[in-house]
Amino acid sequence: MTTRLTIGRDTTLCMSLSGRPGSFGSRFHNHLYAALGLDWIYKAFSTSDLPAAIGGVRALGIRGCAISMPFKEAVIPLLDALAPSARAIESVNTIVNDDGRLTGHNTDYAAVRTLLERHAIAPSTRFVLRGSGGMAKAVATALRDAGFRDGVIVARNETSGPALAKALGFAWQRDVAGVRAPMLVNVTPLGMTGPDAQALAFDDETIAAAEIAFDVVAMPPETPFVARARALGKKVITGDEVIVLQAVDQFVLYTGITPSPEQIAAAARHALT
Amino acid sequence: MTTRLTIGRDTTLCMSLSGRPGSFGSRFHNHLYAALGLDWIYKAFSTSDLPAAIGGVRALGIRGCAISMPFKEAVIPLLDALAPSARAIESVNTIVNDDGRLTGHNTDYAAVRTLLERHAIAPSTRFVLRGSGGMAKAVATALRDAGFRDGVIVARNETSGPALAKALGFAWQRDVAGVRAPMLVNVTPLGMTGPDAQALAFDDETIAAAEIAFDVVAMPPETPFVARARALGKKVITGDEVIVLQAVDQFVLYTGITPSPEQIAAAARHALT
Repeated sequence: MTTRLTIGRDTTLCMSLSGRPGSFGSRFHNHLYAALGLDWIYKAFSTSDLPAAIGGVRALGIRGCAISMPFKEAVIPLLDALAPSARAIESVNTIVNDDGRLTGHNTDYAAVRTLLERHAIAPSTRFVLRGSGGMAKAVATALRDAGFRDGVIVARNETSGPALAKALGFAWQRDVAGVRAPMLVNVTPLGMTGPDAQALAFDDETIAAAEIAFDVVAMPPETPFVARARALGKKVITGDEVIVLQAVDQFVLYTGITPSPEQIAAAARHALT
Repeated sequence: MTTRLTIGRDTTLCMSLSGRPGSFGSRFHNHLYAALGLDWIYKAFSTSDLPAAIGGVRALGIRGCAISMPFKEAVIPLLDALAPSARAIESVNTIVNDDGRLTGHNTDYAAVRTLLERHAIAPSTRFVLRGSGGMAKAVATALRDAGFRDGVIVARNETSGPALAKALGFAWQRDVAGVRAPMLVNVTPLGMTGPDAQALAFDDETIAAAEIAFDVVAMPPETPFVARARALGKKVITGDEVIVLQAVDQFVLYTGITPSPEQIAAAARHALT
């Protein structure tokens, strides 16, 4: 994680704000800055005072700020404008600072929309989506806005689950048992490094009966769900595709520069390992 | 100005705030961080909204913040406490952030006091000091607090000049012509890189009649005043001593680590060239 960097008075700073900073953003963006010879740096922060932190972004001319849990909705009243991606889900994961004017974007939403197109998933495909948190909202709304109409939100949370389903015109179901659909989407931590690393988001029969497995877990991208689906020859969309694509979108929003596919792949390898 | 640095979620940020950021602080601190293997970075900023910028320092957990013109006095009401060095001159050039509690220091004042001792200048020495700005206040107050009683402030500004002199119990004089004293102190931009690079802070006769030449101009430290005094065999205190010493004080306040004389010398060479 050591990169050759220059820090001077003209260096541009981008940053992230989250309850528990991870390392992906710092590693991905700093690697690309170095690879492209940009005099930019990226630093992860946390805060207990969101309004003051955002005020600092504005007052210090920090060019971009990624926003993660638990700030994605609370940050909205502190901004000057919302891009369509953020307005679509009333959730911001990226702030662009143009000379003190802060615009909120949601590159998770945008990345999911891009991936649905890139993998040529027909909007007529019926899906089951597990999860009802912030990222689930981004994925489910991207599905709805891409024309998907026939879906079930599976979530144990009896407040956020039905609310998300109702807002988007999907069905809601408390338990995953017995659900069947051609596309299975996991937007829970099941399979993520940590206590749920061995957990399988959908059972074997459900995976066997499906055609497409979409898992947003990126750490690691090879979750038990993805591994099982791959072994059964299913079409797979993995979480590293989402996290890298949304980070590339941030990079382009901040710098105005589109890295080459090779540069993106190298930064992703660096950031994900 | 390229240093090998690591930036991750645990990297500590220090910064500076000034109307026109220079490069000394970034170069000095980043060089020492790298030399000592610290996971720290230093970045210079400017702002048009000082309260929000300081709020950002607090909310983002930025460990230290150097303060330069024109913010050294305006920042005081935004802090939680003043160290004796800042209280002595009601001017802050350094903020230390202890878990959201901001304490203002003045390492310029502290550096001048240290240099007066290090060079063994007797407090009975009569002096003439040119200048009445923020740095002049720091130097003149350091002289007064070190026991110097017999001094003249020379400043064309008919508000700040007499006010500074009166506050410290020194005399004031508008013009430099005809002043004589064993110690000459320049706290104006005369001799600094830029339009005043060739200007001589004191005339030849005045320098010839003195014993000690003290110039706070650091860029370059070899001003015409210093060169003339050196040629005449006078004792010389140069601005690079002040700027390096005050930066070392900042470094110690921020990190708790005292670099070795060799490390300080290497960082100073890097930052001043």
